[in-house]
Amino acid sequence: MPGLPAVSRRLLLGGALATGAAVTGVGAAYAAPAAGAAGAEAPLPVHTPPRRRGQRSMTDVPFDVHRTVRVGMIGLGNRGSGMAEGWAAVPGCRVTAVCDIRAGRATSVANRLVALGKPRPAEYGGSADAYAQMVKRDDIDLVYIATPWEFHHRQGKAALEAGKHAIVELPVATELDELWDLVDTSERTRRHLMLSENCSYGRNELAMLKMAHDGLFGDVTNGHGGYLHDLRELLFSDTYYTDSWRRLWHTRSTASFYPMHGLAPVAAAMDINRGDRMTVLRATSTEPKGLADYRERFVDRSHPSWKETYINGDLVTCLIDTATGRVIRAEHDVSSPRPYSRINSLAGSRGIFEDYAGTSATGGRIYVEPDHSGHSWRDFDSYRKEFDHWLWKKIGDDAANNGGHGGMDYVLQWRTVQLMRAGLVPDIDVYDSAAWCAPVPLSVKSLAAGGRPVAYPDFTRGSWVNLRVGLDSRESAMPPVA
Amino acid sequence: MPGLPAVSRRLLLGGALATGAAVTGVGAAYAAPAAGAAGAEAPLPVHTPPRRRGQRSMTDVPFDVHRTVRVGMIGLGNRGSGMAEGWAAVPGCRVTAVCDIRAGRATSVANRLVALGKPRPAEYGGSADAYAQMVKRDDIDLVYIATPWEFHHRQGKAALEAGKHAIVELPVATELDELWDLVDTSERTRRHLMLSENCSYGRNELAMLKMAHDGLFGDVTNGHGGYLHDLRELLFSDTYYTDSWRRLWHTRSTASFYPMHGLAPVAAAMDINRGDRMTVLRATSTEPKGLADYRERFVDRSHPSWKETYINGDLVTCLIDTATGRVIRAEHDVSSPRPYSRINSLAGSRGIFEDYAGTSATGGRIYVEPDHSGHSWRDFDSYRKEFDHWLWKKIGDDAANNGGHGGMDYVLQWRTVQLMRAGLVPDIDVYDSAAWCAPVPLSVKSLAAGGRPVAYPDFTRGSWVNLRVGLDSRESAMPPVA
Repeated sequence: MPGLPAVSRRLLLGGALATGAAVTGVGAAYAAPAAGAAGAEAPLPVHTPPRRRGQRSMTDVPFDVHRTVRVGMIGLGNRGSGMAEGWAAVPGCRVTAVCDIRAGRATSVANRLVALGKPRPAEYGGSADAYAQMVKRDDIDLVYIATPWEFHHRQGKAALEAGKHAIVELPVATELDELWDLVDTSERTRRHLMLSENCSYGRNELAMLKMAHDGLFGDVTNGHGGYLHDLRELLFSDTYYTDSWRRLWHTRSTASFYPMHGLAPVAAAMDINRGDRMTVLRATSTEPKGLADYRERFVDRSHPSWKETYINGDLVTCLIDTATGRVIRAEHDVSSPRPYSRINSLAGSRGIFEDYAGTSATGGRIYVEPDHSGHSWRDFDSYRKEFDHWLWKKIGDDAANNGGHGGMDYVLQWRTVQLMRAGLVPDIDVYDSAAWCAPVPLSVKSLAAGGRPVAYPDFTRGSWVNLRVGLDSRESAMPPVA
Repeated sequence: MPGLPAVSRRLLLGGALATGAAVTGVGAAYAAPAAGAAGAEAPLPVHTPPRRRGQRSMTDVPFDVHRTVRVGMIGLGNRGSGMAEGWAAVPGCRVTAVCDIRAGRATSVANRLVALGKPRPAEYGGSADAYAQMVKRDDIDLVYIATPWEFHHRQGKAALEAGKHAIVELPVATELDELWDLVDTSERTRRHLMLSENCSYGRNELAMLKMAHDGLFGDVTNGHGGYLHDLRELLFSDTYYTDSWRRLWHTRSTASFYPMHGLAPVAAAMDINRGDRMTVLRATSTEPKGLADYRERFVDRSHPSWKETYINGDLVTCLIDTATGRVIRAEHDVSSPRPYSRINSLAGSRGIFEDYAGTSATGGRIYVEPDHSGHSWRDFDSYRKEFDHWLWKKIGDDAANNGGHGGMDYVLQWRTVQLMRAGLVPDIDVYDSAAWCAPVPLSVKSLAAGGRPVAYPDFTRGSWVNLRVGLDSRESAMPPVA
């Protein structure tokens, strides 16, 4: 791009790190005053367990080469069963086992795969621990988990301990000690646990990442993401979420339950765990109004939900500081009437991108110097084309035909399988997964303390300072797919 | 509107207050855990000075009837001089005196008014305290102040003590003790001090207020406002801001300098000081990058600005809790490249409005039940028309011809003058003015404490619980204008 400010990713990060050093000063501006300045305070502390003897970091650890990647699936509800055809369609991938507490679902998914001409997977189910038997099979390389949130930690851990890699739907766990336990288990078993963050592979999100690394935004100062999705009708459905598990979370806890879809792409664009890290989180919450108001208007008085009290605020906002002085805002609202948005914006000293706000075909709007002047938004379309990630150029059409969510699901599945076949380092590791899910327990802690800042755990135990490739991979780094 | 949820403003507020009572529980959810729950903490306290003997509240205190409103103007730079014609054009208003430390500006404004066929105003200037002489004149009823921020408090106070009412540009003061001093001075002198918040009279903002009070959003849970305006070119101009006063603030303090344009309309729609109040503020700030980056690229090395160090973060975000469990987000960024926005959004259990994000002629988008379904935005246009405030229906055309900022300036001037002529209660009083400007010092305090929550002063000293009319006035309450 003519006249583009010559700020390469490396320079940018170099800068960020230089600042990071000088500006553990910023760290200082946030934490250090506690040591000195009157009135200032350190954030509420969190425990960082020391790395146990015999554990080593999983950063930059490649997969073994797998000629074929054999997938075992746990949880075959709306999300899980919806991913089955995608896994089966990926070149070099085979679904060898399927499991659901409702055995009938395993059979119906198996039948669907057979109908597509695929080998019949082994079926597990009928009990809450059927998955424990499945993960022990020797014809599984990767376990995909799409059960209700409360089962993710134990099932992900079981997969690792059975010597399998695991890819787990959001969140990988909901408590800090569970997140640390997954980090430790991954380091001990030398198996990767990956958040199944399809939005990290979104076409706009990956283009935003490439623009950031090419320096289009100059020094990135802030980014906003969210999960703003009116789920009220689905939450009160008796068939969509098995046993209404998701609605019940709103009776249990006040937290940002599910901010990762908006947080992860912004974190990737800021190289979180790859040159920067999240250091402090503070949360606010509105009163809960949306679910009770919906029930009042649309749910029959005989419905079991009328025994429930909803305590999770409709809009929960997390403001997260990073070590190099950036700020991430992550919002969560699934109980208010509104059109869908993940916000997905990024801004810096040279420009800004805002998704979900534009008039363009891609839904985004942009303003970057020196390309633009005059204080008016431009369509994102031409930038999305120019910065389209090689994954979308290569398999975008297949993705649209093979998966949900505009193709993001299939890109995630295809990329994960090919990384394992090529014996490369995963784009998303256990540290990213834990960091992106940590706002769930950290928001609980901050909200319980009146919104006070809470320290953000460093799940990498120090290796966040190292520049590493992540979602910004190059096609040249991947051997041709058989 | 057929099928509109039958939630009148009174019911809404009744609800809010009922909650407010039961839910000083919410207050509780934020503050009270400090009293009990482990880890929980009260926000950093702020001092609330007791009302001094001889002072009484200025809420609901009407103006004396003024047949003609005689205005004295202090500060005739870009903003001040730009408002002169507007004051002179308002029926029943006369500019009787003008003052600027640069005497030549007073003469040129006086000449412009004479050229319009208006009486020549008295001229003051040539010294920093010339204004003190001007406010003593007996032919002034209202003093309009548009000087740099650092002079607002002393000049506003001087006007009140000289027995005049004062309307002051943003912010009315920048320190908590100065804000309290203006409240006390207004209560002692029985004169009104009003923030000159033109955006409170914005056409979209007033329509949003009317929609909220008509219950279109159900229980309002949150609103966002901001002042996101790329001022870099003006901040480095040697002519626009006299003596570069505004740029120098960025070398002095880390704070949300100027969030009121986005905060005030949201606060009005939530009936802040009229049934609800702001209770807690927490702030985050990014590193300062924008001004130094702009200077590096566009400012000659010989320019005096090269001796300066900019310490105010580019994006400063305040999250504010209210007594009834709502959350307001107020953003400030004047040093990053981006198109203009005040955000101006409001959301609740029945719908949401977002300004500056739409495709409609009015720039807004909306989604409200039961009018809308299907998770897709609708244009704001028809709602703006249906909920157009009587002020805009009555004088919108005059406004467009007589003032800047799309007519907001003139609507503010016209309304203020007619309230004084009719002897009515001001739409914006000293308590609103102090509450809307308090984020300036409160953000300093929160940022200095690592973003810790800070208690929000109740400038009304308890009267916030009373329902009062404000910007949601009815034309029928105002006698015909001569």
